[in-house]
Amino acid sequence: MNGLRDKAAIAGIGETAYSRNSGVTYQALLLQAAVRAIEDAGLTAKEIDAIIPPCFGAPADTFAVNLGIPDLRYAATLRIGGAAAVASLQTAAMTISSGVAKNVLCVTGWNGYSGARIKGMGSIWDATITMMPIMREFEHPFGFFIPVQWFAMMARRHMYEYGTTSVQLGAVAVAMRKHAILNDNAIMKKPITIEDHAKSRMMADPLRLLDCCLESDGAAAVVVSSAERAKDMRHRPAYIMGVGEGYPESPDYLAARPSLTETGIKKAAPKAFAMAGISPSDVDVAEIYDCFTWNVICQIEDIGFCKKGEGGPFVEGGRIELGGELPVNTHGGLLSQAHVLGMNHIVEAVKQLRGTAGKAQVKDAEIALVSGFGDIGDGSAAILRR
Amino acid sequence: MNGLRDKAAIAGIGETAYSRNSGVTYQALLLQAAVRAIEDAGLTAKEIDAIIPPCFGAPADTFAVNLGIPDLRYAATLRIGGAAAVASLQTAAMTISSGVAKNVLCVTGWNGYSGARIKGMGSIWDATITMMPIMREFEHPFGFFIPVQWFAMMARRHMYEYGTTSVQLGAVAVAMRKHAILNDNAIMKKPITIEDHAKSRMMADPLRLLDCCLESDGAAAVVVSSAERAKDMRHRPAYIMGVGEGYPESPDYLAARPSLTETGIKKAAPKAFAMAGISPSDVDVAEIYDCFTWNVICQIEDIGFCKKGEGGPFVEGGRIELGGELPVNTHGGLLSQAHVLGMNHIVEAVKQLRGTAGKAQVKDAEIALVSGFGDIGDGSAAILRR
Repeated sequence: MNGLRDKAAIAGIGETAYSRNSGVTYQALLLQAAVRAIEDAGLTAKEIDAIIPPCFGAPADTFAVNLGIPDLRYAATLRIGGAAAVASLQTAAMTISSGVAKNVLCVTGWNGYSGARIKGMGSIWDATITMMPIMREFEHPFGFFIPVQWFAMMARRHMYEYGTTSVQLGAVAVAMRKHAILNDNAIMKKPITIEDHAKSRMMADPLRLLDCCLESDGAAAVVVSSAERAKDMRHRPAYIMGVGEGYPESPDYLAARPSLTETGIKKAAPKAFAMAGISPSDVDVAEIYDCFTWNVICQIEDIGFCKKGEGGPFVEGGRIELGGELPVNTHGGLLSQAHVLGMNHIVEAVKQLRGTAGKAQVKDAEIALVSGFGDIGDGSAAILRR
Repeated sequence: MNGLRDKAAIAGIGETAYSRNSGVTYQALLLQAAVRAIEDAGLTAKEIDAIIPPCFGAPADTFAVNLGIPDLRYAATLRIGGAAAVASLQTAAMTISSGVAKNVLCVTGWNGYSGARIKGMGSIWDATITMMPIMREFEHPFGFFIPVQWFAMMARRHMYEYGTTSVQLGAVAVAMRKHAILNDNAIMKKPITIEDHAKSRMMADPLRLLDCCLESDGAAAVVVSSAERAKDMRHRPAYIMGVGEGYPESPDYLAARPSLTETGIKKAAPKAFAMAGISPSDVDVAEIYDCFTWNVICQIEDIGFCKKGEGGPFVEGGRIELGGELPVNTHGGLLSQAHVLGMNHIVEAVKQLRGTAGKAQVKDAEIALVSGFGDIGDGSAAILRR
């Protein structure tokens, strides 16, 4: 039914070093990741003819001008926050399958630690995120300001409805950290235990410090080309088998939302699986958007790796660690590698499928799932195969 | 070569009343136009499964939530200002041809007169337009602030290089006004002459008041469906034969630009014509983005209706008026109908191809060209056929 299956493939990947203080601008980070992805694909910048720039700031022109692209044929921005990186694979595949362009650069990044701190982002957020005016008028007056507060409500509700525990949230944090320790380009390298999680500072009940992702500096990029062309490029292609997007019914977090414990991924994942023609049990490794520990549990359910409400028990006992039934975020994720809006999850999925994931390699990984998660309930999912 | 030709068609069109004071919000205008376009297509809002929202503000969620779309499958924002509306037809055609969605809502609008005045837009522009930080640092200190100043430099250069005259600019203003007078939904209804133009207040030499488009309130929308489905819908489809986008080499207006007298349309139009397999002489009616009179002259050249430098003489003698060789902006354009970022040009092209353009109908119009023009040198072109 859907014409996009296996039409396009990720041919190049690139990342900056991830850090807490890059000392360079947001644009410099983005361009560095872009240049590395283009080089990794064995292309020159002039061969890039379409760009999916980040959700925030830095339109396509920024890349065209600085990379020296004389005749860009296509650009589009996906304004769905953390769901945008994975969703960009769908737009890239559309661009290629329709013949509009041949090599699509998808890039995103953040200088969340040294640069664009949340507190200074009012004007950008207003312009790009639907719910911001709503939040400013109805939620900020009550002190409800920042993501950890929003997700605390969802996590608490999940606990109430399904008996999810803080120890289960901790299991996610511990697993991501174990994986980050294996990764030379991860920020958090100190081992943590379930006890460390339980003792970490409470940020917004029930979420503790170790339930929260990093704010960091960095950028990541991929180059998507046609499946046919990718075969002849530098590395083994990661084919885009399936991809889907999901949008919320309400632009508000809480008030008008049908459920606090279902995410946009619940709409996105079935589209991706239908396109790919496989089921969750076929997935060898999953890179799941992990802005908070709770999100991993909720998405594991909504993707269909287990039944609704069983995500808490699912993440225990090492099941989502390397060697477990479903290795999750083998790079360390947003929780322990770096926060670059999920593009690092795609890069890691490609490494797994190429067999170049180093100490975190899942043996013979053939199929990887990558998810994206936008703050207002947007979701995206892509299924990649080697 | 290109798979998009005739794959999709505009099946529905919708416009608000255009005015100087709608008394309603930007969102209300957008939603009204959207509802009308959906109804015109004979669809219900639930059948819309993809949205290309405006370049500024109002992400897809705004429409999904307010129209009650339960499961949106795709959305993308095209951040190329006045080039976005026409470019949205390409993304819509890609979405449909790849099977991602069936009915795509493309919508844009403005409450430029009563609401978002240029002077208050600093933060939105910074977030969405590349060149704004450059302008703020290097141009604003010298008093170089607003579009009429930017385009004055381009018009002056065109005069210098090609001998274009103010009388020729005036001929564009007069033609647009003549067409607006035939249009019940146009703001400017008072006839003007070349002398009126010559006597109108100088805004930024050489551009006078009557060289400038309106700031107005309004919104327009189209629904794009597959060519196959559109055949069975309420109105005669306007098939998307060809479409293309063009991006600038520099994000700055002046300093780093290779030429002040060539526009993004010079890159966009050849792509659209190549896809359509026709040439400029096949076009029966052209709706050309006319933020200033000069832009029409320059785009007529860059599209290929005449040679470079001959746009001035081309617009004289009634050639771009109804009954002339190439009727341009039969609705009155941004200059005399309303400024809704060019979506009104698409709506008018569809009316011409349906044969419902009323007093402004071009007899037996079979092929229409629509152009878009982004401030930083972006361009877009679409060729529609009945």
